[in-house]
Amino acid sequence: MKIRKAEASDAAAISGIILPTICEGATYALDPDMSEADALAYWMGPDKETFVAEEDGVILGTYYIRPNQAGGGRHVSNCGYMTSATATGRGIARGMCEHSMDYARSKGYRAMQFNFVVRTNERALRLWQSLGFEVVGRLPLAFRHPTAGYVDALVMYRQL
Amino acid sequence: MKIRKAEASDAAAISGIILPTICEGATYALDPDMSEADALAYWMGPDKETFVAEEDGVILGTYYIRPNQAGGGRHVSNCGYMTSATATGRGIARGMCEHSMDYARSKGYRAMQFNFVVRTNERALRLWQSLGFEVVGRLPLAFRHPTAGYVDALVMYRQL
Repeated sequence: MKIRKAEASDAAAISGIILPTICEGATYALDPDMSEADALAYWMGPDKETFVAEEDGVILGTYYIRPNQAGGGRHVSNCGYMTSATATGRGIARGMCEHSMDYARSKGYRAMQFNFVVRTNERALRLWQSLGFEVVGRLPLAFRHPTAGYVDALVMYRQL
Repeated sequence: MKIRKAEASDAAAISGIILPTICEGATYALDPDMSEADALAYWMGPDKETFVAEEDGVILGTYYIRPNQAGGGRHVSNCGYMTSATATGRGIARGMCEHSMDYARSKGYRAMQFNFVVRTNERALRLWQSLGFEVVGRLPLAFRHPTAGYVDALVMYRQL
């Protein structure tokens, strides 16, 4: 698996990964009815650096990294990761997260924060914990899950 | 004290309140070198509803309210409050926070979240606690304070 900066020509492949996840509305706090253009503007916006994970020329995952806050908070990074539904369970999210931590360190970030890990997203929660992230906050009933109703969201954090 | 929606003609008065706080860089994770135009775009942007607190026609404080997240997280509100340096200690922040909670309820929000209360901002911390907010998260060394160095930031939350 090769991880590289996303280019404008990757937009269609990135859409193909992020739109189904956004539309499902079960893991990201994003408008499920978001248009493709808005989804790409969100994922590849000027405030973010966006990467893709590819294998044999096929894009299997994508992530972004950005400062989580401005000013006195800009030394903490924030990332979002999505993997193609056809490629789950193959370590792609893990590989992207490891890549993002190395990249963050190289850019001088001192920590990484996930603002909103939905409690029912147990696979992600376990993965981030195995990569050294700790639950540092719990937001009671902060997410309305499409089938489970109101559930907690977690704030996860690690120093780099 | 009257609290009302901000109008475009309030921009200069709002700048006069928010720019010194942003420039000081001790309580908000915003670029201290932000221009007046950028500060106003942030505080009065289309994603927010902005209010002012005035007394005898003088604007003494301002706050914004917005959904803290989109999609499944849009039932949780987020606010920022700033009081004129000449009017601290007179209950203006408290009045604005009470107003914002009532307004949030009227708009159907179910909770309110503060994402980033700097640990050294003890006056704010005590005020929010007295208004029913709980510390639900602690972000280790997430804020670089201009004089105190790296300090924790807190996530505060309350149901409405």
